[in-house]
Amino acid sequence: MSNKKILIIGGVAAGPKTAARARRLDPEAQITILEKGKYISYAGCGMPFYLAGKIHDFDHLYSTSYGVKRDPDFFKSERGVEVFTGMEAIAIDRDRKQVIARHVDTGEEKVFDYDKLVLGTGSYPITPPIENLDLKGVYRLNHLEDAQLIKQALDAGEVNDVVVIGSGFIGMEAVDAIFSPRRTVTVVEFKETLLPGILDQDMGNLLYKSLYEQGLEGRFGEKVLKLEGEDGRVARVITDKGAIDADAVILAVGVRPNVQLAQAAGLTIGETGAIVVNEYMQTSDPDIYALGDCVENTHLLTGKKVFAPMATYANRQGRVVGDNVTGGQSTFKGVLGTGVLHCLGINVARTGLGEAQARALGYEVETIRVATFDMTHYHPNSNKILLKMIADKKTRRLLGIQGIGKGEVAKRIDVAATMIYYGGTLDDLLNIDLGYSPPYNTPIDPMVHTGMALKNKLEGVAVTYTPAEVKEKLDRGDDFILLDVRTAPQFNMRHIEDPRIQQLALGELRQKLDQVPRDKEIVTVCVMGSRAYEASRILQGAGFTNVKFMEAGMEGWPYDMDEF
Amino acid sequence: MSNKKILIIGGVAAGPKTAARARRLDPEAQITILEKGKYISYAGCGMPFYLAGKIHDFDHLYSTSYGVKRDPDFFKSERGVEVFTGMEAIAIDRDRKQVIARHVDTGEEKVFDYDKLVLGTGSYPITPPIENLDLKGVYRLNHLEDAQLIKQALDAGEVNDVVVIGSGFIGMEAVDAIFSPRRTVTVVEFKETLLPGILDQDMGNLLYKSLYEQGLEGRFGEKVLKLEGEDGRVARVITDKGAIDADAVILAVGVRPNVQLAQAAGLTIGETGAIVVNEYMQTSDPDIYALGDCVENTHLLTGKKVFAPMATYANRQGRVVGDNVTGGQSTFKGVLGTGVLHCLGINVARTGLGEAQARALGYEVETIRVATFDMTHYHPNSNKILLKMIADKKTRRLLGIQGIGKGEVAKRIDVAATMIYYGGTLDDLLNIDLGYSPPYNTPIDPMVHTGMALKNKLEGVAVTYTPAEVKEKLDRGDDFILLDVRTAPQFNMRHIEDPRIQQLALGELRQKLDQVPRDKEIVTVCVMGSRAYEASRILQGAGFTNVKFMEAGMEGWPYDMDEF
Ligand SMILES: Cc1cc2nc3c(=O)[nH]c(=O)nc-3n(C[C@H](O)[C@H](O)[C@H](O)COP(=O)(O)OP(=O)(O)OC[C@H]3O[C@@H](n4cnc5c(N)ncnc54)[C@H](O)[C@@H]3O)c2cc1C
Ligand SMILES: Cc1cc2nc3c(=O)[nH]c(=O)nc-3n(C[C@H](O)[C@H](O)[C@H](O)COP(=O)(O)OP(=O)(O)OC[C@H]3O[C@@H](n4cnc5c(N)ncnc54)[C@H](O)[C@@H]3O)c2cc1C
Ligand SMILES: CC(C)(COP(=O)(O)OP(=O)(O)OC[C@H]1O[C@@H](n2cnc3c(N)ncnc32)[C@H](O)[C@@H]1OP(=O)(O)O)[C@@H](O)C(=O)NCCC(=O)NCCS
Ligand SMILES: CC(C)(COP(=O)(O)OP(=O)(O)OC[C@H]1O[C@@H](n2cnc3c(N)ncnc32)[C@H](O)[C@@H]1OP(=O)(O)O)[C@@H](O)C(=O)NCCC(=O)NCCS
Ligand SMILES: [Ca+2]
Ligand SMILES: [Ca+2]
Repeated sequence: MSNKKILIIGGVAAGPKTAARARRLDPEAQITILEKGKYISYAGCGMPFYLAGKIHDFDHLYSTSYGVKRDPDFFKSERGVEVFTGMEAIAIDRDRKQVIARHVDTGEEKVFDYDKLVLGTGSYPITPPIENLDLKGVYRLNHLEDAQLIKQALDAGEVNDVVVIGSGFIGMEAVDAIFSPRRTVTVVEFKETLLPGILDQDMGNLLYKSLYEQGLEGRFGEKVLKLEGEDGRVARVITDKGAIDADAVILAVGVRPNVQLAQAAGLTIGETGAIVVNEYMQTSDPDIYALGDCVENTHLLTGKKVFAPMATYANRQGRVVGDNVTGGQSTFKGVLGTGVLHCLGINVARTGLGEAQARALGYEVETIRVATFDMTHYHPNSNKILLKMIADKKTRRLLGIQGIGKGEVAKRIDVAATMIYYGGTLDDLLNIDLGYSPPYNTPIDPMVHTGMALKNKLEGVAVTYTPAEVKEKLDRGDDFILLDVRTAPQFNMRHIEDPRIQQLALGELRQKLDQVPRDKEIVTVCVMGSRAYEASRILQGAGFTNVKFMEAGMEGWPYDMDEF
Repeated sequence: MSNKKILIIGGVAAGPKTAARARRLDPEAQITILEKGKYISYAGCGMPFYLAGKIHDFDHLYSTSYGVKRDPDFFKSERGVEVFTGMEAIAIDRDRKQVIARHVDTGEEKVFDYDKLVLGTGSYPITPPIENLDLKGVYRLNHLEDAQLIKQALDAGEVNDVVVIGSGFIGMEAVDAIFSPRRTVTVVEFKETLLPGILDQDMGNLLYKSLYEQGLEGRFGEKVLKLEGEDGRVARVITDKGAIDADAVILAVGVRPNVQLAQAAGLTIGETGAIVVNEYMQTSDPDIYALGDCVENTHLLTGKKVFAPMATYANRQGRVVGDNVTGGQSTFKGVLGTGVLHCLGINVARTGLGEAQARALGYEVETIRVATFDMTHYHPNSNKILLKMIADKKTRRLLGIQGIGKGEVAKRIDVAATMIYYGGTLDDLLNIDLGYSPPYNTPIDPMVHTGMALKNKLEGVAVTYTPAEVKEKLDRGDDFILLDVRTAPQFNMRHIEDPRIQQLALGELRQKLDQVPRDKEIVTVCVMGSRAYEASRILQGAGFTNVKFMEAGMEGWPYDMDEF
């Protein structure tokens, strides 16, 4: 209990969560939030659902579940926290322990004393070097005002040919929000695939395939140079490879941490460009804490600093800072880069290191791709998912996992994140007691099957090609047999004509081994991978020496099916 | 590689999984399965969905996802495994390493040699001492033949007044399968609540409340003595408390391990009545392995032996035994009793120790009940869930968790099971990097909120009564204030008249502290618990000395709402 002055700068997630927790622990502290914007305590992450019409009322983005708006009055009456909106902190005087702020409308300056200062200044969207971003019809999706502008345009019928620039989480949530059969939606991504850095390229490609089938247009490895307008409105997006008609453009090329105030006050800024904090979320000045989108985090696997601007970190760190500014000793240890996304009916999730990331960091990695049902296949709610698991060859530690599909993946990724937190290895997987019932999973959970398949690979029981490797072999004209072990009806329904493709159903293989040439490399394939695996074991067991199976089968084929 | 003879007894889950894995590792072994029944490799767990009409074809219960029936031909051709159905193993000659079997129809005996013998003899349903179980209309739901009989009766319109005896997992799955507005369904349970031993009593009561609201009738603490029939068909169930009309009865009072064969062969049987095995799943004879429903398991938290007949263990152990009978050294370390159930639209899940179990084992436990939304409340798919978490006061280790609700609980329980596997504590929770996005959870996941609430309790920040304790206080006529901090509209919609109830919305509390008596015990309540918690902190902060909040609010009130 104290009369401590806790001053918080930034009023979206990091700030208010800190204030709420601090208030519960210290009823007497003076807790003040300064926010330069108009809205506070709002669900930025909810904006896509507002745009999609799933949230009918704009106010719901900053209301409690019991229907009360979280405005300054709410913070005053319900939380005992004083909030100043339209109030920008412009300088920190660390010697005097004061913050100088200026009202954004009146220009009036005001000085706030602090015992503990909390920086929850967040992030701001990157403005890329693209000409004519000031045309009408060019939007961002970072703040509530952005969502209002887009919503107005949607309602006015001004959003028909949309170009989303950038395919990170926010870009893809924008896609999900505005996609409709009545619109053409094109994503332009500078990197080679969707969600670069979040998904490995093969997974990004697979995701793109299923969104493309629904009508999304993607342009990859393409750089937007400028926008062209007509009568002050955007009309075209000009890239290094051509032009795209557009009456609306959403810019989503990422965010940068908001660190000017901290930097000007001499606080240490890290390599990532974000504020450096210790486990207690203290900056280089022990009386100044920072959290949320403005700080850098420690990656729990690599120990390296990363910039990972996520609402979940802002909130979890807020609870830690709320403890610590009221005398506690709580710690936030770091992140695994877990992320989850729902886009056009597809679930996407990932945690830990991607394959490319792990290799770049020098890990000796092994990976597997497994296509499977998310629950017993006979259950009417079952759907397919595809999991890619990444492990360290030497320690057998799980390094990462990525999943996409109509079926449930988020659960598997959360379980994996928990395992990685504890340094779990592939050998733990079968022993972790995940619940099983037909409407939820399979007797051996899909995520455990994936781990078993990866163990099989490490132990030489599964010898595989990735779909990408098989594609390369086909394109290169390699001489080998692509042994399709699906049933005849399945094969007859769809297959390509290529002299290298041979059909022999798994159930016939043992009896018809003499039909399989012994002098050629054999690559078995099926729909999801498990039959091809079984077939590879039959052939290997029968003395065939050059046999592999294609991981994840046709479900894992990110290319045109006509090429399969 | 070998010509090893691997002989497997039992052909449902444990046996076939062992065979399938062993075959992939050893292409030359002779692998044989003896099954006394007619069907093999079938999804017993899928039977309820067949009865409910969600699986249209009986065959689907033993077909692959690619439409091939898993019959002996399949095992022969696709898996290279020989299966004898209708073949009962009647004795094991351990010296000669032989099994003597008898064909159930012909009576013909046959001797099978083995190098490694695998017992996957499973379990059989308990027959309770109830008179007249041989009446027509009395069913079990353990084997495929049972499902066929019930399905015929359902189709013939013979199942209208159903009594399910026993409310374990199978009983409740039977309820889910046959429940319909056109039938009366009554569950008779000898213990005090639904899913005894699986859920704590308060959670069982809450589950019952939501099923009762849908029309299920439950009779608890009631013992079935006999059945009465008319013309050979069941007509009434007679209990120690009365009679229930019934034209169909489903007996689901549990299963016992099938150990006669093992016992007769002198293999060690444990206290639980099931076969004793080590981590490698070897019985007391190192050349004889046993797994699945016929063995006992080690509880990973307590180290004690438990009988836990679950398909997931049968399958996971099958992979271990498949490894070991072909020369491997894989281990199955134990179980946490994780279980999950879907019943009448309600998700139910649990792992680890229940409160009662933990107390009985001598743990000093602390518990919390938290009602919350499974995802951001503004998302149209959000639903409520109620989680109860159990931790060890001394070590702060997570001991168990139970969840019920329309919303997602299975994910949370799987994450908790993973934590418990690694000995995780409440202090880890905020640092485990669970993915967040509005359609999946809240920025701080519901399961993490639950852990935080439990930490708050351990640290004296949250001081609570359980709903049961509040009910007791009300009933006992205690003098205290039940301070309802819901909004006025919420309060006006539903509340009981009791002079001890006072409404004061959370948002007004700080301003109207003088309206709250200082000389009485105050118990704050709300819909889900979080506002009541907040209110308790406000009062405690304002110097009220005798304040508690009711855990989980009205959502956690398992009693009649008219009593609230
Ligand atoms: C469309 C969208 C979807 C998202 N989806 C997810 C998701 O699914 N999962 C997830 O984890 N995250 C998601 N995020 C990210 C999440 O919204 C951010 O991580 C979170 O808002 C960060 O909170 P913060 O409080 O740290 O920073 P911010 O939200 O950036 O808030 C900082 C505030 O500080 C104020 N401020 C800055 N400087 C000053 C100053 N000098 N004086 C006064 N005020 C100042 C700013 O005006 C701003 O309002 C999403 C973001 C967007 C835009
Ligand atoms: C309705 C229902 C729902 C269920 N739901 C779930 C669920 O959601 N999750 C879960 O994990 N579990 C569930 N289970 C439990 C699961 O079905 C069992 O744990 C699983 O079947 C055990 O497999 P098993 O192979 O060990 O034994 P069993 O299935 O009992 O099979 C053993 C076989 O061995 C044969 N046998 C025995 N003795 C001999 C002999 N001497 N000679 C020859 N053959 C012999 C028997 O005839 C039998 O076919 C459910 C069970 C039922 C009935
Ligand atoms: C809402 C906000 C003000 C935080 O307030 P808060 O009261 O701490 O709310 P939370 O939901 O985070 O936490 C609820 C508290 O009640 C507890 N709790 C939750 N449900 C409970 C229940 N049923 N019973 C008892 N306690 C409960 C939690 O443990 C937590 O308390 P603690 O932090 O003292 O442990 C702040 O997070 C915010 O402004 N959020 C909106 C912005 C945002 O997050 N945007 C980005 C995401 S879209
Ligand atoms: C089906 C059954 C014969 C087991 O056969 P199985 O081939 O081992 O099948 P599973 O699905 O368990 O395992 C699939 C195998 O392929 C692997 N796998 C699964 N999907 C894969 C994919 N897409 N790519 C590569 N490998 C894959 C798994 O790792 C596993 O191999 P492993 O054990 O060698 O590691 C046996 O479990 C059974 O009879 N089940 C039905 C009865 C039952 O379980 N009843 C109770 C539950 S209702
Ligand atoms: Ca397949
Ligand atoms: Ca509430």
